Amino acid sequence: MSTAAKSKSTDHPLERLVFFSDAVFAIAITLLVIEIEIPHLQRGDQAEALKALLHLAPSFFGFVLSFLVVGRFWIGHHNAFTLIDHYDGRLAWPNLLMLMSIALMPFATAFMSANLGQFIPTLFYNLTLLFTALLSRWVIVTATSPALIRKDADPETIRLLRSRGLGVILGVMTTVAFTFANAQFSQIALITIPLWQRLLNKGKVQPASIA
Amino acid sequence: MSTAAKSKSTDHPLERLVFFSDAVFAIAITLLVIEIEIPHLQRGDQAEALKALLHLAPSFFGFVLSFLVVGRFWIGHHNAFTLIDHYDGRLAWPNLLMLMSIALMPFATAFMSANLGQFIPTLFYNLTLLFTALLSRWVIVTATSPALIRKDADPETIRLLRSRGLGVILGVMTTVAFTFANAQFSQIALITIPLWQRLLNKGKVQPASIA
Amino acid sequence: MSTAAKSKSTDHPLERLVFFSDAVFAIAITLLVIEIEIPHLQRGDQAEALKALLHLAPSFFGFVLSFLVVGRFWIGHHNAFTLIDHYDGRLAWPNLLMLMSIALMPFATAFMSANLGQFIPTLFYNLTLLFTALLSRWVIVTATSPALIRKDADPETIRLLRSRGLGVILGVMTTVAFTFANAQFSQIALITIPLWQRLLNKGKVQPASIA
Amino acid sequence: MSTAAKSKSTDHPLERLVFFSDAVFAIAITLLVIEIEIPHLQRGDQAEALKALLHLAPSFFGFVLSFLVVGRFWIGHHNAFTLIDHYDGRLAWPNLLMLMSIALMPFATAFMSANLGQFIPTLFYNLTLLFTALLSRWVIVTATSPALIRKDADPETIRLLRSRGLGVILGVMTTVAFTFANAQFSQIALITIPLWQRLLNKGKVQPASIA
Repeated sequence: MSTAAKSKSTDHPLERLVFFSDAVFAIAITLLVIEIEIPHLQRGDQAEALKALLHLAPSFFGFVLSFLVVGRFWIGHHNAFTLIDHYDGRLAWPNLLMLMSIALMPFATAFMSANLGQFIPTLFYNLTLLFTALLSRWVIVTATSPALIRKDADPETIRLLRSRGLGVILGVMTTVAFTFANAQFSQIALITIPLWQRLLNKGKVQPASIA
Repeated sequence: MSTAAKSKSTDHPLERLVFFSDAVFAIAITLLVIEIEIPHLQRGDQAEALKALLHLAPSFFGFVLSFLVVGRFWIGHHNAFTLIDHYDGRLAWPNLLMLMSIALMPFATAFMSANLGQFIPTLFYNLTLLFTALLSRWVIVTATSPALIRKDADPETIRLLRSRGLGVILGVMTTVAFTFANAQFSQIALITIPLWQRLLNKGKVQPASIA
Repeated sequence: MSTAAKSKSTDHPLERLVFFSDAVFAIAITLLVIEIEIPHLQRGDQAEALKALLHLAPSFFGFVLSFLVVGRFWIGHHNAFTLIDHYDGRLAWPNLLMLMSIALMPFATAFMSANLGQFIPTLFYNLTLLFTALLSRWVIVTATSPALIRKDADPETIRLLRSRGLGVILGVMTTVAFTFANAQFSQIALITIPLWQRLLNKGKVQPASIA
Repeated sequence: MSTAAKSKSTDHPLERLVFFSDAVFAIAITLLVIEIEIPHLQRGDQAEALKALLHLAPSFFGFVLSFLVVGRFWIGHHNAFTLIDHYDGRLAWPNLLMLMSIALMPFATAFMSANLGQFIPTLFYNLTLLFTALLSRWVIVTATSPALIRKDADPETIRLLRSRGLGVILGVMTTVAFTFANAQFSQIALITIPLWQRLLNKGKVQPASIA
């Protein structure tokens, strides 16, 4: 592309990449629900209905957990792309691979929920999270690299976003490690994510505009 | 983010949040239809076909009701976000939780339609509406808070949007209460929403630009 | 909304409405495919595979027909909204009802395809088209009404878009009428749409920029 | 449309076409996953879980292959549309037909994965790729035609994008030909795509801004 063309429509290709990514995030997050089976009650009394809902508890757990996880990855993507100055071809593949990992989430969620507490399905889910975390940080690091980022971007914000991505990786790694000790409760270890993040940001100020 | 950066791209992160929300609304509203089972007719005569369609009446009822409900929540979201001046991290989580509630709608709809008139499925649906209404108003109140709203926003419009959100909550609460008296016809109570809204806006003028 | 606020962000609410509509169109058009059943071959020889594909011919017919139909409605929507000057609350409900009709298309398509050539399923499909055509023209007429349209919009273009919408209605009405004579081949009557449109535009010039 | 109107909102209709296309790409790419069956384990031991995952290997293969394929077509679309100056009605139909081919991908993928290595399902998949490649190049050629392209577009970039589209067609044709020799491993021939592209671009410089 000539320089003239480039300066004229700097952010259109970027907007499209962002848009496409948002759409994949939104579809993956909304598809989570269709893996929850619809109970068709036979007798129709309240005991049967409550039992059916109770039976779906693992599915609801998976739905809520994955909604928050995918939502959090979306917020991270959102924060990083706000700082990009212009589109660059280097973004395309890391972003596409990260989206592939996000698109796998409805399957990983349903597989785990259908076999809740079992080792392999839980490990599969946690490893999907780990892949997503690694690819997501790759995208964040690419997006905030000197060649792409806006000249006026606050270095403190860049550092924060990168260290946050690292915190997610460390927290998910902790979760994967816990799976080998106790698959059933391993995802409790996801609460170490903010702890890792706090550790990495010890003594630093958080910019107000970041969620 | 530095002030310079912020002033340069004020509404891009906001646009993305709006975009992501719109996509989730649109997917949830369109997924409603895939919960309607496709009749495969055996004999192929008209009596069988009409009977099959009649058998789907609860599904059509659920589809239309939820389409209008989700559509109405979208319009409310749309009206509130029109008044926001700039993106703020405080919007991210209330909005994400509200979207989770919207994303649950296809399940709640199918569960109610598959067991139409039964107490627990109907209560489940009506409580999903209540959660959505509460979270939706949280989003509206955040969006129209002094820190986020445009300086030139009409105070009368702000008041109207907030009181409307309250009217939805009161109407859905009435519906939930009615479920305990008569689950089968409880959703008729949703028509109290405009009544509550009118009550809350008694003697006030409605701005023309709001749907 | 105050006039100042309105003039500042004139087209943002409009963009969102357009965006939301595009998303529903896109999801409905892409969901068409998931109603096509995946053949799981037993023996695995070519005769079985070809037979399975042949068995899916009605589903492919429904997929292609509905893709073109929904695509055409999207183009009509696209053409009309290009001429709108600013968002107006009057657009919200006609547009939402039209989208409900579009969202019903995957069901109507699968119902017809699963029972191809039968009277009731075909009539159901053709009536869904009729509803969509009527609601779509309502949207087009609202969008091109004096209160909403751009001051510099070409009157000839407005007339063309409106008469096209009428041509679609007449063509679909013809199709509905044909269903009573011969359900199986009734959709051939959809080719009367361009004929009706030509009839309504006899002796008029078509603006080049319209698809 | 009058010239005045046209110059005022040049790129809005274009944005909408791009947006609609992105949404269809995003939905098709994310729907790929829902064709992967969720294993419900009976005994719950690790041997059963690993066997179930192994049994899904063809589905994962199909998911990854199609994700990369659709992603690559999206990148090509993205690159071509960056160069367009203004919307033109001629874009609507080629683009819509190309999207129909993309929307068929989840079916073609599931059909191939469910019957992996069989001749007809593999041929069906490879022919779907071929159709997509042909329609995609039609879109790229239309988008980069003198009537639509930006005046300042770099001729070298145009040539590159067009020759790349040709390379995809040749590579997919090679794959289709290989299907007749060995269906099971035919898709390995997709790696000839970059070879064809390199051959077509021998001795030419690639612009840096293209992915």
